[in-house]
Amino acid sequence: MHSCERPGPGDHPRNVPVEFHANLEVFPQVAYTGPGIRIGLHVQRRKFLRYAGIGAALAGGLAGCKEGPTPAPSKPAASRVWKWKMVTTWPKNFPGLGSGAEFLAEQINVMSGGRIHVEVYGAGELVPAFEIFDAVESGSAQMGHGSAYYWKGKYPALQFFSTAPFGMTAMEMNSWLYHGGGMQLWQKAYDRFGLVAAASGNTGVQMAGWFNKEVNSLDDLKGLKMRIPGLAGEVLKRAGGTPVNLPGGELFTALQSGAIDATEWVGPYNDLAFGLHKIARYYYYPGWHEPGTAMECFINKAAFEALPEDLQRMVLNACRVANQDMLAEYIARNNDALETLVNEHHVELRKLPVEVTERFGVLSEEVTAELASNDDLAREIFDSYRNFLKKSRAWAEISERAYLNLRAG
Amino acid sequence: MHSCERPGPGDHPRNVPVEFHANLEVFPQVAYTGPGIRIGLHVQRRKFLRYAGIGAALAGGLAGCKEGPTPAPSKPAASRVWKWKMVTTWPKNFPGLGSGAEFLAEQINVMSGGRIHVEVYGAGELVPAFEIFDAVESGSAQMGHGSAYYWKGKYPALQFFSTAPFGMTAMEMNSWLYHGGGMQLWQKAYDRFGLVAAASGNTGVQMAGWFNKEVNSLDDLKGLKMRIPGLAGEVLKRAGGTPVNLPGGELFTALQSGAIDATEWVGPYNDLAFGLHKIARYYYYPGWHEPGTAMECFINKAAFEALPEDLQRMVLNACRVANQDMLAEYIARNNDALETLVNEHHVELRKLPVEVTERFGVLSEEVTAELASNDDLAREIFDSYRNFLKKSRAWAEISERAYLNLRAG
Repeated sequence: MHSCERPGPGDHPRNVPVEFHANLEVFPQVAYTGPGIRIGLHVQRRKFLRYAGIGAALAGGLAGCKEGPTPAPSKPAASRVWKWKMVTTWPKNFPGLGSGAEFLAEQINVMSGGRIHVEVYGAGELVPAFEIFDAVESGSAQMGHGSAYYWKGKYPALQFFSTAPFGMTAMEMNSWLYHGGGMQLWQKAYDRFGLVAAASGNTGVQMAGWFNKEVNSLDDLKGLKMRIPGLAGEVLKRAGGTPVNLPGGELFTALQSGAIDATEWVGPYNDLAFGLHKIARYYYYPGWHEPGTAMECFINKAAFEALPEDLQRMVLNACRVANQDMLAEYIARNNDALETLVNEHHVELRKLPVEVTERFGVLSEEVTAELASNDDLAREIFDSYRNFLKKSRAWAEISERAYLNLRAG
Repeated sequence: MHSCERPGPGDHPRNVPVEFHANLEVFPQVAYTGPGIRIGLHVQRRKFLRYAGIGAALAGGLAGCKEGPTPAPSKPAASRVWKWKMVTTWPKNFPGLGSGAEFLAEQINVMSGGRIHVEVYGAGELVPAFEIFDAVESGSAQMGHGSAYYWKGKYPALQFFSTAPFGMTAMEMNSWLYHGGGMQLWQKAYDRFGLVAAASGNTGVQMAGWFNKEVNSLDDLKGLKMRIPGLAGEVLKRAGGTPVNLPGGELFTALQSGAIDATEWVGPYNDLAFGLHKIARYYYYPGWHEPGTAMECFINKAAFEALPEDLQRMVLNACRVANQDMLAEYIARNNDALETLVNEHHVELRKLPVEVTERFGVLSEEVTAELASNDDLAREIFDSYRNFLKKSRAWAEISERAYLNLRAG
């Protein structure tokens, strides 16, 4: 690239800049910065000026203290402290996920200079893991950290805001959410529950799972008892397997006792911590079922709207920082953990056979399309996801995929 | 994944959470949150408490105004307004890059509620594009937005903080920077110039470029006049070509007149805006030379250190949000622009032949390794980059690459 080389000696600096407006019209900015809001730069600038005003008022108020009594600033809210509870679906400090929620809270706490104090609660500390959605909806907690597919019982199409089998990678997911209309649709869905939606983490491509039976053909799926929840579980069922739903904490025992033949979990980082390599023979890839699972932070809308706009922006931006940071952490830790699993624990890596993944691909399309038939919003979400994926697949063909294949030699 | 299923009816909520400390010890958090600082959660919490104290003092000060004169708060700095200039290497509002700098400034302005007001200047408005580094070092501007390879004349190893031929993808780059020690090394390099380093944007995989001559074999590179700067230009040179360095604004004319046979630029989004499809016959992929180019924001260290820590964190987090947002925008806009280029302008996409990319791969290793011989820090940066890449290649083999190939069918 290198877009701007040093201007020649005869160039007057004022002549160098070029305004690029034409292209911005061709591809209008639809950057997402908050619930239901499409903010162009001009609107943001107006907002800034408003706050500059508040800042000046506040400065005036403080300066006035030195001289003597002055009227209180019209918006003293800036000095108020909000005590917020963040409930999560993760065990306290669970690597990557629970620690990601802590990271998110710290960003808000530090950026707000203590004007917001978010306290994180692990699953079961205030409410059980799967009751955090209700807790935030009711306002008994202000924020929740989890992943949208946990709430499929509330509204099945929410699963698209986590991941879909044969769907988008982490990078594509962020692109759809922030610049492809995804966040607007997620917010539309959460409006029904009085919640503000924000993406807040991603695991990247997961592993297909740990198996004690070889998978060499479609026949090997018949009767295979595998812990694999959600849409992917339905895919396995239609391929002849028996999906089982088990909490993470029970995986080790279930696999060890032979109650299940296989389980998916996350990837090398989390799987190594669970010790799954000690009781399973084969580690299959790639994670067709969760190619880039997004975590979320949802916020009670009334609590969010009570914040001044600077704090609102801090909260949403903290979610975005946490979103990026978790993916960065997963890649770095997966790199290390994979090395440990292969070199120290001699884990056997296996690629799922083409026959199997082709069948999974066909069934995944079938299963995800059924989600769209529920209602108008579900159809809108499905169409948006599918159309974006279609285009990003074409671009990935000649960018990310082509490059990774080139680099692999 | 689905880590925490609903606990059974007999479970007491207090028994559900599990603390995961063992694994955090195996893979200690080295999350990067600021220059030269490795902050664990406990340290961050101490910082928060300090700010909570300031918040309370401020609240007390304001409340006191209602009652009568009170002593001014000990840290009235919170109400000060910092007016900052951000100089950039981009033409004002240049799509993706210049607009990314504006986006960054807006995040700081809005989050700080006007306590910082960052004004963005396009290349040449205050100083020419390639003098922004000196301008920020000297303090005549507080922030700069560009890419680290522009400063190779200052210190050649800085190029690793932009991109390297056959190097890391955007996701891997972020992982190295934030969780693999990369940011610490970048900061170490910028300490020499009194600057604070921050990653602040990424283009993702670029395109190999626009060609008016076919590239079917290594022979076709002989004498090929191509605009391709930096390390990749040196690679082309060693492969027999003639690298040419031209400012972006001269590409169209140079390619049209036949002064050059080929040029790389960025990717579909920016290339379409430049109209390169009107004057070039073949659009080659993939971008072996820039597989995930990082943009940067550097900050005058004295200016940064004069800020209270809440504003410091806002500035650094705004950079991280801008980092993520630019990549998300590039993918979404590249998706659209590729469709336009192929369907409306009938651009012919071509893959570089294996013979050529294999040679580029060997030469790239040679050229990047030479950067490491300069001094101890350069060696440290090179070793860190290379070691991280080695591990992330192994993980990408069974995750991102395996999945993208699976999805492509």
